[in-house]
Amino acid sequence: MKGMGPIPPAFRASEDGILRVGGRRVDELVEEAGGTPLFAYDRAAIRERVQLFRGSMPTGLALHYAVKANPFGPLLAHLRDLVDGFDLASGGELARIDASWPSMPISFAGPGKTDAELSAALARGITINLESEGEAERALTLAAEASTRPQLAVRVNPPFGLKGSGMKMGGLASAFGVDHDRVPTLVRRLLDGGANWRGLHIYAGSQSLSTEAVIESQRATVALAAEIAQAVGEGPPEVNLGGGFGIPYFAGDKPLDIAAIGEALKMTLRDRSPVLADTRFAIELGRWLVGEAGVYLTRIVDRKVSRGRTFLVTDGGLHQMLAASGNFGQLLRRNYPVALANRFGGEGEEEVTVTGCLCTPLDLLADEVMLPKAEPGDLIAVFCAGAYGLTASPQQFLSQSVAREVLV
Amino acid sequence: MKGMGPIPPAFRASEDGILRVGGRRVDELVEEAGGTPLFAYDRAAIRERVQLFRGSMPTGLALHYAVKANPFGPLLAHLRDLVDGFDLASGGELARIDASWPSMPISFAGPGKTDAELSAALARGITINLESEGEAERALTLAAEASTRPQLAVRVNPPFGLKGSGMKMGGLASAFGVDHDRVPTLVRRLLDGGANWRGLHIYAGSQSLSTEAVIESQRATVALAAEIAQAVGEGPPEVNLGGGFGIPYFAGDKPLDIAAIGEALKMTLRDRSPVLADTRFAIELGRWLVGEAGVYLTRIVDRKVSRGRTFLVTDGGLHQMLAASGNFGQLLRRNYPVALANRFGGEGEEEVTVTGCLCTPLDLLADEVMLPKAEPGDLIAVFCAGAYGLTASPQQFLSQSVAREVLV
Repeated sequence: MKGMGPIPPAFRASEDGILRVGGRRVDELVEEAGGTPLFAYDRAAIRERVQLFRGSMPTGLALHYAVKANPFGPLLAHLRDLVDGFDLASGGELARIDASWPSMPISFAGPGKTDAELSAALARGITINLESEGEAERALTLAAEASTRPQLAVRVNPPFGLKGSGMKMGGLASAFGVDHDRVPTLVRRLLDGGANWRGLHIYAGSQSLSTEAVIESQRATVALAAEIAQAVGEGPPEVNLGGGFGIPYFAGDKPLDIAAIGEALKMTLRDRSPVLADTRFAIELGRWLVGEAGVYLTRIVDRKVSRGRTFLVTDGGLHQMLAASGNFGQLLRRNYPVALANRFGGEGEEEVTVTGCLCTPLDLLADEVMLPKAEPGDLIAVFCAGAYGLTASPQQFLSQSVAREVLV
Repeated sequence: MKGMGPIPPAFRASEDGILRVGGRRVDELVEEAGGTPLFAYDRAAIRERVQLFRGSMPTGLALHYAVKANPFGPLLAHLRDLVDGFDLASGGELARIDASWPSMPISFAGPGKTDAELSAALARGITINLESEGEAERALTLAAEASTRPQLAVRVNPPFGLKGSGMKMGGLASAFGVDHDRVPTLVRRLLDGGANWRGLHIYAGSQSLSTEAVIESQRATVALAAEIAQAVGEGPPEVNLGGGFGIPYFAGDKPLDIAAIGEALKMTLRDRSPVLADTRFAIELGRWLVGEAGVYLTRIVDRKVSRGRTFLVTDGGLHQMLAASGNFGQLLRRNYPVALANRFGGEGEEEVTVTGCLCTPLDLLADEVMLPKAEPGDLIAVFCAGAYGLTASPQQFLSQSVAREVLV
């Protein structure tokens, strides 16, 4: 038997043993959606996350949503009313932001922005987080051609990384951002070039479950911003402190202590250098806001025994939930939390391996886990499917059917 | 500096240093297609593969194409005229096979076939490779309801695996096929149930570069088919010997010796048990037929230096070529073959890291490789992109632009 990650606290056993998302029975949600596979996102669970953040963090700290985590339209509309800004990673994401929405701070980061993407961002007046000196020159040129004053921030490649993070994004040579020691020169260049300098974007890593590491990284980030501001000779209007808040996916994972992070950040901001006195600080979160709010629902199509092991074969798979198969950045495959959704909270009765429907042994949803006895027709729930789920998966692989999505 | 895989022999340096696909300059192909990223598949390279197979293998051995490797429409139409059958892995793939095409053997394998998929296969009269006893019962029931005589084969989970293969698919408890010792009973059940028993499908693994292992696996597969046939009491009309022919992706990889495999298989079939005298044998290949014929073309958008390392940032990435990033079944990331397509065959002049445009450090196309000096606007070619390329990638990740495809 192998372990699995903890089921997010938003999902609790009900009397009838049917899993609820957004207060609704998942079997009914599946029926209304027209079948499985279905991603169901819990509106209230997202709102509670935002409230936890607001209740713990320093007053005035802005909360941005990283659209790349999940760009599902209704979910964006829900978050629009909850957060203070959106951070984008492509021109495609910009196109998903309805221009008729009330204006809110929007920034656009990412290496390899094309001229077309830069022009679209300039036309919408959003902040471009520059990833290199070359991109800065292209943005200035395109803005001059369009007779627009560009809104430009600099993404900084910091000299430190976020410890304990799933993906360390600082302290190394990197495609992301400008090495910290070259940033002041670039900011002067932007100011001299007539840009509206919007500030700094400093992202040290993602998916950390170490409260201490997040605190330390935020402290170092604020200090680095002050150092750069002093070298520039003026304070940045805004500093995006990055994100990096992880969620528990695997056995033994513990959630971050958000209260402790908030307390430490209050100290850090209280004690900050005077050069940052008028700076607006933001934290950019994707996974932490929506990851645990999503459930991937698939139906068992076959139950079979091979050489003594029981397999539950579902109509889903890695083409829709790649990360749960262990094929997206993980070195070793471990089990996401899973459950039998129509006997939710029931005792484990047998050891099973849950697979998808693809013709590849990579297509594992849960390996050797204990579940209540299941039969074809039953529903399997894979949790932690709200971020980097459907859009981070090879949906056309094997020309399989398309998954549905619903926000409840 | 890190190594990279060998550039497939179909692509040779030209006098002007511009890479050709299908005899056409790739810069012209990109322009005609409307831009990068572009997957270009070489028609002649695929035809040569088929000819190599035909020239080496026993007379009468059927060659099937595994559509999952690449379901691009024009490529399917090209292969339709070259191979003897198509093997499918989903109802979606079946829908891609134009019903108006001249009839050819088609089979459908894969765990987790839904009732709708089974019914579609029954209606088209194609062979269903049954993956379990439960699926057999469903197929018989659905056929009876539709008053159709089902064409049923049994996928066998063999007691041996293909050694040296990227994905071992036999010798283990598996979601694929029926354990070999239960197959005779199931075949009798099919015959008693009025099905047209089409034979056996035995797939021991994929992506093997060991000539000896492929030979040994084919020998064991034919012996196992004979053993099962003897237990059943009649010979299978067809035995699909699986595939498993690998292609060189990484530094040090050597191609299979197809002539040696062909010679050995001639012996194996010559010496086969009389119970298999009238059996048609087929080999099912996907990757080996089309993998090396495809090139993924992206344009350099940015060139930047970070902490002494040079990065070439392209407009492509893992959302279109996941396998080259090392995130699809590989334990350790290694470099696919890459080249500067507009200085193809030029000497390596500098060490660079080629990335995609995504906001994740996973998005690597080539790490620390030697290339001629490159600038924004130049084209990067990633080879071995013909199989498990675009459709095996998370195309909607970060809402990036869509890649184009062309068969030349």
